[in-house]
Amino acid sequence: MRAVTLDGAGGPEVLGWGEVPDPDPAPGEVLVDVVATAVNRADLLQRAGFYPPPRGASEILGLECSGVISEVGEGVTGWKVGDEVCALLSGGGYAERVAVPAGQLLPRPAGVELATAAALPEVVCTVWSNVFMLAGLTRGDNFLVHGGASGIGTMAIQLAARAGARVLTTAGTQAKLDVCRELGADVGINYHDEDFVERVREETDGAGVDVILDNMGAKYLSRNVDALATGGRLVCIGMQGGTKAEIDLGGLMRKRGSVHATTLRARPATGPGSKAEIVAAVRHDVWPDVERGVIRPIVDRRLPMARAAEAHRVVDASEHVGKVLLLTGD
Amino acid sequence: MRAVTLDGAGGPEVLGWGEVPDPDPAPGEVLVDVVATAVNRADLLQRAGFYPPPRGASEILGLECSGVISEVGEGVTGWKVGDEVCALLSGGGYAERVAVPAGQLLPRPAGVELATAAALPEVVCTVWSNVFMLAGLTRGDNFLVHGGASGIGTMAIQLAARAGARVLTTAGTQAKLDVCRELGADVGINYHDEDFVERVREETDGAGVDVILDNMGAKYLSRNVDALATGGRLVCIGMQGGTKAEIDLGGLMRKRGSVHATTLRARPATGPGSKAEIVAAVRHDVWPDVERGVIRPIVDRRLPMARAAEAHRVVDASEHVGKVLLLTGD
Repeated sequence: MRAVTLDGAGGPEVLGWGEVPDPDPAPGEVLVDVVATAVNRADLLQRAGFYPPPRGASEILGLECSGVISEVGEGVTGWKVGDEVCALLSGGGYAERVAVPAGQLLPRPAGVELATAAALPEVVCTVWSNVFMLAGLTRGDNFLVHGGASGIGTMAIQLAARAGARVLTTAGTQAKLDVCRELGADVGINYHDEDFVERVREETDGAGVDVILDNMGAKYLSRNVDALATGGRLVCIGMQGGTKAEIDLGGLMRKRGSVHATTLRARPATGPGSKAEIVAAVRHDVWPDVERGVIRPIVDRRLPMARAAEAHRVVDASEHVGKVLLLTGD
Repeated sequence: MRAVTLDGAGGPEVLGWGEVPDPDPAPGEVLVDVVATAVNRADLLQRAGFYPPPRGASEILGLECSGVISEVGEGVTGWKVGDEVCALLSGGGYAERVAVPAGQLLPRPAGVELATAAALPEVVCTVWSNVFMLAGLTRGDNFLVHGGASGIGTMAIQLAARAGARVLTTAGTQAKLDVCRELGADVGINYHDEDFVERVREETDGAGVDVILDNMGAKYLSRNVDALATGGRLVCIGMQGGTKAEIDLGGLMRKRGSVHATTLRARPATGPGSKAEIVAAVRHDVWPDVERGVIRPIVDRRLPMARAAEAHRVVDASEHVGKVLLLTGD
């Protein structure tokens, strides 16, 4: 098969498109003929050499895909050859075929085109597991998501609004904030012009936000804690602003707050806290509203896999809104 | 009535014993004739001027008491004059009488002497709310509590052992570690001689602990995160080692861990996250085993309230094991 290849670690220029060995589905896995994958920031880190794949995962980039099941491994039930699916992956999505643990498969949602379905697994699983399963966002809560126009952001806004939370979000341009509003955000904060802590206070009558979904890590840590309400939960899922920062535990204590840092990729395939557990919850709690069109995949652009370098440049420059897809077709 | 008085802020010498106005029970409160109170570290901070009482709370020290209800305020049901009780307070326990919101009362447990019951409310409510309600400690988990011979420590060990967790604890002397063992600790770590992170790793086959109950704050933060297992929860309830420290969010992310900091005193009397909610849970989930003698109040010594200064010196020097009680009688 063909796959996106890595010529060492480095910038987007190390990405190629060439022949590699086909994957073999292990027991409990299926083989998916990939129609599309999507770019995640983790892919950029992995390409640059900073994020080696977890043990046992494919060396090929790609944390999600959509496609058609072409082979069903030993012991897999509930799936058959020809099923249209999308999937959460530990790697290997930037390729024509990928082996996927059955617990990480989701049916293509009715009404969503197969390629577009590749925009869903990472963002839906990430937002659902962190904002709802972990942080317990609920009706009437105030919710802040940083980077509202990102793939994660566009999904977090929709799912939080669906849950009846008040949604505050940050982004770097007015155009992005306009999209966030259309997706259900109540308050848009341009981080170039405004201090988000002050604005959060204004918008919540001084109370702060109950849950924050953060992608900046160290850079925002102290301000995020300042923006929390009593009992607030800060969930860090990205470290774009570094990893090490001072924390004032006394301030956190006055809020009775908590700081969580999580990752989806390193979770085990099955068992407690696993990818399969999250995927099952997503299928039960989110998929019906994707099929009803209440929750929509937001796609910025589609490029052929052979142009993965271009896709990485777009994401690196944060020029996109929602997900950038890579398709196996030309 | 008489109460322990504060002659300004400072060392134990500012504590006196003198006449003050009687408290008046507000609607929803009862008046308790105090038999005993117990010393908490927060009392030492308040005495020194570092921990002002929350708005509306008594200026008198004392976060728990036992005694007899002598008056029942408007709207209180389920309690009557003459009931023997212990109570969680926002302040006011170092006195002959105290007004208590009804939701913070617990019946004296059968089999526990009334004065001794003053040793229970703070430690049981603190441990139950943090280790179980918040951090969800469960059978088979590894649990680390720092300062195992403290009031909190002696209760945390018992409740964690009752839950079927494996209990690791730190203390500063072998005599204290021996007590911890008797209370149910599986592993005792003398923090003068050993690095607790290394010992935790050894004792958990490298996995780390699922829950840590910490009283040291900044001083232990980075080592506590190192000692966490995947999915581990660090709960800071004391800041004896300072409040500000560097945190490595990347390390926390690799653990998918969380850092919580909480306090009991600042919680509202009623509603979600309130003292009443915690007290009700304790009455339901812990009190029956206190009455069966499975969970025991651990009392270091009893002193008359007029000797509060001596009691504070003992706690300040960490000479005690369990709780130091102050009695209204002579």
